[in-house]
Amino acid sequence: LDKQKFDQFDAMFYPNSVAVVGASIDKINPGAVFLKALLDSSFEGEVYPVNPAGSEIFGVRCYPKVSAIPNPVDYVLISVPASSILETLEDCAAKGVKVAQIFTAGFRELGTAGYRLEEEMAKIGHKGKFRIFGPNCLGIYNPAINFCSWGNLPVAKTGPVAIIAQSGGVAFRTVNAGLAHGIRFSRVISYGNACDLDSTDFLEYFAADPDTHIICLYIEGVRDGKRLMELLREVGKIKPVIIWKGGRTKAGAEVTASHTGSLAASYSVWESLSKQVNGVQVENLNELIDTLLGFYYLGEFKGHSLGFVVGFSDGGGSDSVAATDIFSSQGFEIPPFSATTRSHLQSSLPLAGTIMRNPLDAGFYAAVSGALDKILTVLSDDPGVDLIILQEYLYEMFGETPWKELVKYVNDTFLQLRKKQSKPVVVISAPGFPTTQEEWKIEQRLIAARIPVYPSLERAAKAISNVSQYFNSRDLDENQ
Amino acid sequence: LDKQKFDQFDAMFYPNSVAVVGASIDKINPGAVFLKALLDSSFEGEVYPVNPAGSEIFGVRCYPKVSAIPNPVDYVLISVPASSILETLEDCAAKGVKVAQIFTAGFRELGTAGYRLEEEMAKIGHKGKFRIFGPNCLGIYNPAINFCSWGNLPVAKTGPVAIIAQSGGVAFRTVNAGLAHGIRFSRVISYGNACDLDSTDFLEYFAADPDTHIICLYIEGVRDGKRLMELLREVGKIKPVIIWKGGRTKAGAEVTASHTGSLAASYSVWESLSKQVNGVQVENLNELIDTLLGFYYLGEFKGHSLGFVVGFSDGGGSDSVAATDIFSSQGFEIPPFSATTRSHLQSSLPLAGTIMRNPLDAGFYAAVSGALDKILTVLSDDPGVDLIILQEYLYEMFGETPWKELVKYVNDTFLQLRKKQSKPVVVISAPGFPTTQEEWKIEQRLIAARIPVYPSLERAAKAISNVSQYFNSRDLDENQ
Repeated sequence: LDKQKFDQFDAMFYPNSVAVVGASIDKINPGAVFLKALLDSSFEGEVYPVNPAGSEIFGVRCYPKVSAIPNPVDYVLISVPASSILETLEDCAAKGVKVAQIFTAGFRELGTAGYRLEEEMAKIGHKGKFRIFGPNCLGIYNPAINFCSWGNLPVAKTGPVAIIAQSGGVAFRTVNAGLAHGIRFSRVISYGNACDLDSTDFLEYFAADPDTHIICLYIEGVRDGKRLMELLREVGKIKPVIIWKGGRTKAGAEVTASHTGSLAASYSVWESLSKQVNGVQVENLNELIDTLLGFYYLGEFKGHSLGFVVGFSDGGGSDSVAATDIFSSQGFEIPPFSATTRSHLQSSLPLAGTIMRNPLDAGFYAAVSGALDKILTVLSDDPGVDLIILQEYLYEMFGETPWKELVKYVNDTFLQLRKKQSKPVVVISAPGFPTTQEEWKIEQRLIAARIPVYPSLERAAKAISNVSQYFNSRDLDENQ
Repeated sequence: LDKQKFDQFDAMFYPNSVAVVGASIDKINPGAVFLKALLDSSFEGEVYPVNPAGSEIFGVRCYPKVSAIPNPVDYVLISVPASSILETLEDCAAKGVKVAQIFTAGFRELGTAGYRLEEEMAKIGHKGKFRIFGPNCLGIYNPAINFCSWGNLPVAKTGPVAIIAQSGGVAFRTVNAGLAHGIRFSRVISYGNACDLDSTDFLEYFAADPDTHIICLYIEGVRDGKRLMELLREVGKIKPVIIWKGGRTKAGAEVTASHTGSLAASYSVWESLSKQVNGVQVENLNELIDTLLGFYYLGEFKGHSLGFVVGFSDGGGSDSVAATDIFSSQGFEIPPFSATTRSHLQSSLPLAGTIMRNPLDAGFYAAVSGALDKILTVLSDDPGVDLIILQEYLYEMFGETPWKELVKYVNDTFLQLRKKQSKPVVVISAPGFPTTQEEWKIEQRLIAARIPVYPSLERAAKAISNVSQYFNSRDLDENQ
């Protein structure tokens, strides 16, 4: 990626000043919502409302047009009716802005006239030497400068995850769910109809971006499929790209046409191509988030041999069967424990003589103080176990422990364990119920120990398999 | 099913008196847990502790053996060490009990000696003219008489669902999750290693039972596979049987051997046979519960044409694509609305000129008072829509409505709608977050209107497809 292009993206993600065009003076329209969120957020750059109808919005001076703003403007958020877009972009060109984001929808997704209008828009940007993303997009979230173009997100640290999403809904939901599960982001972009900048541009940028180590990509269509595959091949060698392709069915592809105006190629062609380039393909938003959790918390996990512990509360006979069925369907092994591990378990746990199977039925030891620590330590020391998985309702895993002690116990057990060794640990909550507030707090403690919590065996198995397959394929490629 | 056999089962499910053998006098062992739960429950039958070591447990008179109890004993719950089982059963025979449930584990699942012991146990029952279920099982839940052999469940009405589960964990979790989602049960049984009574016996009983309309079956193995298939074929003509087979992989099947001593046949043979008999096969506990919700709330749903509404909060572009991809992968159609429906939507909603697509993006109308009612009414009247599905975070579906009004609104909108017409409605919560307590309360209101709530598009699609496939196959069979 050349320096000039990188600088363009820097203006997009790190604007010093933002103009919001189309916030209403007297009612709540989308522009006003975006403006208010920016003003209320911790973003420290300048924010300029633009609307010829008034002199002030939310107590901030309002300008009649972008070119009337006396100071430099890096980023313009445009939320005016489609009919005023070209005029607004010409004004941006006159002002010499660096980048324009168009929220307004109703272009190529409505047909040929909209498509032509998008071509005009791109031309104005090209002539005016600024880049455009959208139309029909939510824009950007950059936690490094607390900049979010679609809402006032909580202040959060930056992290290694970038999102490139053609849909604002996917960007928005992935960011919210990610933040709730302890995921931190480098930069996020929703780019909509892609009249100018497209997924390939952003992929190029995040490939080169040293802050980004995991990329999530939601696309419905792409202008240059060949270039996308070349890029995915290159990026896949150094960073995982989790790809959710909207419109994988014929019926779904028809809907993408009316969402982002995307014309989809056959999904089977897409699927086989992106497999060749080691793209991590997912089929829905939950799988996207689950897989992201895996890449985020499990490190470069390539293992296939699991040490499973189930049934803390009520015995885990059927859990053992279900865990084995579901994880072995995804290519994992749950092999018998080694003689050493069995003897260590037997000598450190009080019920000598119990068969120490894998999955280990922890129901036998539920009432034994410190049993979980001991089991975890022994399995951590077993070189035949690549990953430790515990399955139980979170509130039952810790028995009758009162809340305050429980937090301490989780901290002591898991944080200490993670300090001593690097073997990854995963917790799976047993199915059937909504999460309680207390369990949600336990999850936050586990996340602090870099232990992801999955809501079901099947979702965990798929996500962990996605992670392991990616790193194994990457190794294979490297050795060829 | 002959009268004599039916009476045997009645004694099992409707005991007038229960003896608990093996509750400890001075410490909490499983027998004591079961005894305490029975004593604390609303079960009105007699409960007799049996233990030669004392004269009283939990303040209740204790007998040295079953045959020492002066009154009749219908049901014996046995939780003594494996080595005392035969002696206890001989005593049950001497007393003339009607049925014995053996909780104790450690028989055929440990090998040949245990298998022989089970044969002895069955012989004693046969000779003594009483039936045995177990060993290695949790037993029975019959809400009609508040009888639960494994714990003190909340008092709940009876309902149309029976569970036959080889594993106690599956019975226990399905009952708990079911009760939480408004499901009500006729009778539930966990039968373990099946030394005497097996899945086929229970299936025969529930096939004939007029209270039972939906059957859930969890099995790891079966003595008489041919008989099971014959029965499934017969039952499947009148009642859906949701079947989860534990041990569908080679590795999982090995685990079933050490769980309930089951020796599994090949899963592919099993799968194709049970498809032939119109068994509703599921692969994990969540799918079991989801499918049960579908049968419970959707009636005899055979449709394939969906009216979808998405994006209440933030616009539903990608939701429309995802809903279409996921549901059309399961064989459903989301066809364009009829001209009549479009014109009714246009005339009853304020944003004339909006394209009325299916899925309908409700984001346009989010702020419009009463929009949801109008949309629901129009889709209910459309004969081309078999099922209405709404997808959104529950707390966002109703916008900024305060809690008290919200309850009223949900009641008014959905309960009224359901009174006016019989078209089923499903709600799907958007992914990414744990359920909040408020959402859980909204779910309870929706359930009261017989509207099930699913946690994701993919789980809803699979469950609803299971329901529709069952009834369509049944129709085909009837017409052949």
